[in-house]
Amino acid sequence: MTALCFDGRSVLVVAEREPPALLPGEARIRMRLAGVCGTDLEIARGYLGFRGVLGHEFVGDVVEAASPGLQGARVVGAINCACQRCDFCNRGLPNHCSARTVLGILGRDGAFQDAFNLPERNLFRVPDAVPDEHAVFAEPLAAACRVTEQVDIAPWQRVAVLGDGRMGVLCAYALAERSHSVTLFGRHPGRVPFPISVEEKPVPEKVRDRFAVVVEATGSPEGLAIALRLVEPLGTVVLKSTCAAPHGTNLAPIVIDEVTVVGSRCGSLPAALELLAASRMPLAPLISARYPLAEGAAALARAAEPGVLKVLIQGKTRS
Amino acid sequence: MTALCFDGRSVLVVAEREPPALLPGEARIRMRLAGVCGTDLEIARGYLGFRGVLGHEFVGDVVEAASPGLQGARVVGAINCACQRCDFCNRGLPNHCSARTVLGILGRDGAFQDAFNLPERNLFRVPDAVPDEHAVFAEPLAAACRVTEQVDIAPWQRVAVLGDGRMGVLCAYALAERSHSVTLFGRHPGRVPFPISVEEKPVPEKVRDRFAVVVEATGSPEGLAIALRLVEPLGTVVLKSTCAAPHGTNLAPIVIDEVTVVGSRCGSLPAALELLAASRMPLAPLISARYPLAEGAAALARAAEPGVLKVLIQGKTRS
Repeated sequence: MTALCFDGRSVLVVAEREPPALLPGEARIRMRLAGVCGTDLEIARGYLGFRGVLGHEFVGDVVEAASPGLQGARVVGAINCACQRCDFCNRGLPNHCSARTVLGILGRDGAFQDAFNLPERNLFRVPDAVPDEHAVFAEPLAAACRVTEQVDIAPWQRVAVLGDGRMGVLCAYALAERSHSVTLFGRHPGRVPFPISVEEKPVPEKVRDRFAVVVEATGSPEGLAIALRLVEPLGTVVLKSTCAAPHGTNLAPIVIDEVTVVGSRCGSLPAALELLAASRMPLAPLISARYPLAEGAAALARAAEPGVLKVLIQGKTRS
Repeated sequence: MTALCFDGRSVLVVAEREPPALLPGEARIRMRLAGVCGTDLEIARGYLGFRGVLGHEFVGDVVEAASPGLQGARVVGAINCACQRCDFCNRGLPNHCSARTVLGILGRDGAFQDAFNLPERNLFRVPDAVPDEHAVFAEPLAAACRVTEQVDIAPWQRVAVLGDGRMGVLCAYALAERSHSVTLFGRHPGRVPFPISVEEKPVPEKVRDRFAVVVEATGSPEGLAIALRLVEPLGTVVLKSTCAAPHGTNLAPIVIDEVTVVGSRCGSLPAALELLAASRMPLAPLISARYPLAEGAAALARAAEPGVLKVLIQGKTRS
């Protein structure tokens, strides 16, 4: 079995890897298509302390499962695998389970391999109308939709997204479903087509009309300071970037303007699949390149280049 | 008229200062008792860019007012003077008025002088049962109560306050009115008597049971990082410290644990007066020293010493 591993120093393709044992309640998924995310690149740089098979954005086929209904299903999956026993699990918050493993990020081998395991309850069937090339966006789109789960956004509220990389573009798509006025501040205007409610702009030095909600998705340590310039008093900044570097940011504006800063991580896969099925989002322009799994190391190198959006990794079962 | 001024370099007592002209809608207040706050010390260090008479915590007597009912009243005052015309004023949020002046902080001479002006609508009559020594805490106590205006706290929720200085102690008092379990993390245990629902502890290296709400009131750039160690996933950190120094803090835990960080500034004076009238809070132990206005510079120096709580400045009309 082929797998793309990080051994603590470098990313390498391992050709003869044993498939991990299937634990009770788990299903085995054969990978069809997987996506490279900023978190994968952070891990490959040695942050987060993870060792093992990378990858957590995927669409695949269930090849082994206890539930007969799942067998053969084309699925996407929630990446947080909860213990079902801790305080957070008991409160219905499995994404914050204190003993969780996370696919390709924490204590669990990921999706950049021929086949991998996830709990059956983490899996969601992909509607037939959604092609693999769209379904592979379900996980990051769910993370983008998480913003609208956390922050009430009225249609008339002016919303800004900071950063037009992978996550920023998906956040702009998700927010355009709620607000009639989304401004995307980034370096690559025109790279991707947007709904008419999304306007692209470079980051201004001075801001006249500040925003009720600003989503910080730059992936850069400077993002928060810029977001605090863009947000209006009593407004909300949503933090999406998990920067490994420390932020050197004066936080006094948070206090003076009584800003709310909300950290935002994973969201609802069913909500993302619903959006994908409605197919209002132009996803094809987000795909910068595709690589077979055997060239996974090159895929990660490509994804790390400036200006590159989503890089996909193809499994063997890919039609 | 005597006034304690900051001229951009140092704090000095000016003996022959002209009283400022009374604008329409304003009342003149003769200062009875005023309090030194951390913000006064920040201004005196040259931060915030303010020049003029310092001071924004006070109790005083109205000596001139258009409204006959106010004449002679003993009052405390809201420090934000709003324009009544801007978008934020129209939305009922005068504390965030974009053209506001702030008593002794921004564009308006403060309370460390024999007499000063505030809009009549900013003034609140002090109940007879509340002595000057308690009324002078109305403004900082309102700032402490602001936390409970911003964050819903259930009685059973575990709350932590970080920092047992002036603001931390008042926050612990205010939060003990809501939660049965308040833990105050500080360096001076036993300095002040607390309600039985407040437990004092030193900051631990590792935290077993994290808190739903953590109020950061250390006044130190390191406070946020400690607060993020203390707060549970999906919990809330309330920022009270307006540090002039930049914070060198890794903000990734905000995203990973989906923490909400809420900046918190000024609160409701009537709510604070109500608490003061109920007189459940032991305020006398918070008063470290008193100085006449003519020795105001010494008062500020004293307030800057480690371990000192509230330093009061006495006006001439003080009985």
